[in-house]
Amino acid sequence: MKHCLKNLRKNPPLIHCITNYVTANDVANALLAIGASPIMADDVKEVQEITAICSGLYLNIGTLNSQTIPAMFLAGEKAKSLGHSVLLDPVGAGASSLRTQTALDILQTVKPQILRGNISEIKTLAKGTGTTKGVDADIADAVTDKTLEEAVDFAKGLSQETGSLVVITGAIDLVADANRCFVIRNGRPEMGRVTGTGCQLSAILTAFVAANPQEPLLAAAAAVCTMGIAGEMGHYHLLHHEGNAAYRDHMIDALFHLDGARMEAMARYEIR
Amino acid sequence: MKHCLKNLRKNPPLIHCITNYVTANDVANALLAIGASPIMADDVKEVQEITAICSGLYLNIGTLNSQTIPAMFLAGEKAKSLGHSVLLDPVGAGASSLRTQTALDILQTVKPQILRGNISEIKTLAKGTGTTKGVDADIADAVTDKTLEEAVDFAKGLSQETGSLVVITGAIDLVADANRCFVIRNGRPEMGRVTGTGCQLSAILTAFVAANPQEPLLAAAAAVCTMGIAGEMGHYHLLHHEGNAAYRDHMIDALFHLDGARMEAMARYEIR
Amino acid sequence: MKHCLKNLRKNPPLIHCITNYVTANDVANALLAIGASPIMADDVKEVQEITAICSGLYLNIGTLNSQTIPAMFLAGEKAKSLGHSVLLDPVGAGASSLRTQTALDILQTVKPQILRGNISEIKTLAKGTGTTKGVDADIADAVTDKTLEEAVDFAKGLSQETGSLVVITGAIDLVADANRCFVIRNGRPEMGRVTGTGCQLSAILTAFVAANPQEPLLAAAAAVCTMGIAGEMGHYHLLHHEGNAAYRDHMIDALFHLDGARMEAMARYEIR
Repeated sequence: MKHCLKNLRKNPPLIHCITNYVTANDVANALLAIGASPIMADDVKEVQEITAICSGLYLNIGTLNSQTIPAMFLAGEKAKSLGHSVLLDPVGAGASSLRTQTALDILQTVKPQILRGNISEIKTLAKGTGTTKGVDADIADAVTDKTLEEAVDFAKGLSQETGSLVVITGAIDLVADANRCFVIRNGRPEMGRVTGTGCQLSAILTAFVAANPQEPLLAAAAAVCTMGIAGEMGHYHLLHHEGNAAYRDHMIDALFHLDGARMEAMARYEIR
Repeated sequence: MKHCLKNLRKNPPLIHCITNYVTANDVANALLAIGASPIMADDVKEVQEITAICSGLYLNIGTLNSQTIPAMFLAGEKAKSLGHSVLLDPVGAGASSLRTQTALDILQTVKPQILRGNISEIKTLAKGTGTTKGVDADIADAVTDKTLEEAVDFAKGLSQETGSLVVITGAIDLVADANRCFVIRNGRPEMGRVTGTGCQLSAILTAFVAANPQEPLLAAAAAVCTMGIAGEMGHYHLLHHEGNAAYRDHMIDALFHLDGARMEAMARYEIR
Repeated sequence: MKHCLKNLRKNPPLIHCITNYVTANDVANALLAIGASPIMADDVKEVQEITAICSGLYLNIGTLNSQTIPAMFLAGEKAKSLGHSVLLDPVGAGASSLRTQTALDILQTVKPQILRGNISEIKTLAKGTGTTKGVDADIADAVTDKTLEEAVDFAKGLSQETGSLVVITGAIDLVADANRCFVIRNGRPEMGRVTGTGCQLSAILTAFVAANPQEPLLAAAAAVCTMGIAGEMGHYHLLHHEGNAAYRDHMIDALFHLDGARMEAMARYEIR
């Protein structure tokens, strides 16, 4: 996996982000920390030009609105036509029809290279059965050791059906194409108390895949391990009085300092 | 008061925030720190569905615009019809007609359960006489020991008139219904140098009241003490070279670690 | 220079910011840190009223859109008519026609007192020849000791032509009017890995110039030194495991603690 990080840092990809205003700052700093560059632009009049000078496009519907939805489609079409990596993060799919429908439309029209969400969001898009609780996954949907085999099959099946890499994150993370699924066990439960760790992961995923066009599945798995490792390293540096605000920064700082050797040493995954 | 915090953490409320983009990230992390969950959504096409799955709605006009104003009314009406807690934070009321009028319209139409602002904002809404200086209170309006009795009467009167709990924050904080007023002396003056502490307090207020429907006044007072205590604890942890950026994080981290025992020990209030 | 900081803190200017949602929080905290006050407002219905109660207006096109562009013109015209300081930060000019054209239109219509960008952005506006790479300057455009004389002439010439103070930031910073150019060598290369340091600088610039109407060029140079010194002080406080997230906060904290004596001692500049 470490050569994926090396490639990213050798040729830093510029990532066009159409993302929510809640975590846009963290997303930008996370991309800079890992070695990529962000540009945020969401007006229909410029998104096609902006995405043309980038190598990856990150679509996040966290605070979607009537102005930015058409911008996502325009940017998505342009990015696909240029062969760029496109990632969809369907934040809160299932929580409103607007979110569910927008995510489904992007899946069908733009056909993103990567789809990343929590299990409830992904189930909503695949089957209409996820029970999204706001922007967090429902505990009833959780991927556990008990439900792992089923979940792996589900992820592979959805990838087969959509043609996208399917990334489902939670206590256990899955990164699947139609044939193989990385089962990843990095990260910490406390990451769920920090807003935007999912948004940051999606951004980094876009950068890893954009920088490693020859092996997108491995690059995606490397990105998911990277964010989990940053969660572990960041937690290690927490002082006794520090909480989720300090943790947010420690994670980004861990991305900044991560190197290939540490990545190899700490990545915990199997392939199914 | 500590049972109010306990109730919040036992049944973490999901809070729908229509808030400004300046401090949305801090608001999200503050809600997560105290034990609640945030969801930001401001498009008219989804706000009613989103607010329906939440138990509290937080309306903040800090960067209001022609898209989000109608969303606030739609969400507000829906939330009220479902019996949810609704809070209005009239950021900068008095600084522009649009802010003043929007806040007055929300007060009249939505009838929020809680109104929280600085003294200049609240006076503007009550009497048209506050002298708002941007988003900070004018010193001429300040609640001091000298003007306290008058201010307490004003807060109770406004609560009587509007039917909302009235929360006025500053060096001395007031939390009033028509009959009783908590006078709270937690917090530090340095909090005014950190952007968004008022926004965070309003979000936490919404969560406390949503989680304690049986005693909204006490829950609101507990929330105001909580933020003030976080300001005190956060200040204690400041290193000599740290300033307002570190302080912001230390406060959120203090919310994260706050427990009932410390809350009881540090809360400084009287009831008038 | 230190009296410029003293003036700012004696009469804290209120700065109206129409800026991007990516770094709005850092901009607000940076203004508070240096001693000024921020107000963000970008709806056409209120920007003229808001800017009227401020003494400086900061226009940043980082996430411009069809709602905020007309707001920038309205606010700009009002601010100019009142004799307020107006600064334009043409983020990403050259990266899309919308950005380039909007920036050129603001330059022509509003005639901002200060124009601040990286060399690629400024070249794009001046000659249409900058090679903007997203929101970062192209290395080919960089101001170095070798190209310094030419760059100084360019900055003075552009100031002569536009009537604006021209501030070009990079490894070497230039602050020019038609006759004099401050060449400033404060700052650290690592600042480029933190999102929003340019946005923060522009905000602080607006505040310094607004607070020192008698000597705008010196005030602008003082602001640029200030941000560079904050970058140096912030870097000094970085722990071995800290990266760009911690660095962001350390810089704002350094602005908070900066005093005139340190400013004089650390400022590194010459006048050409």
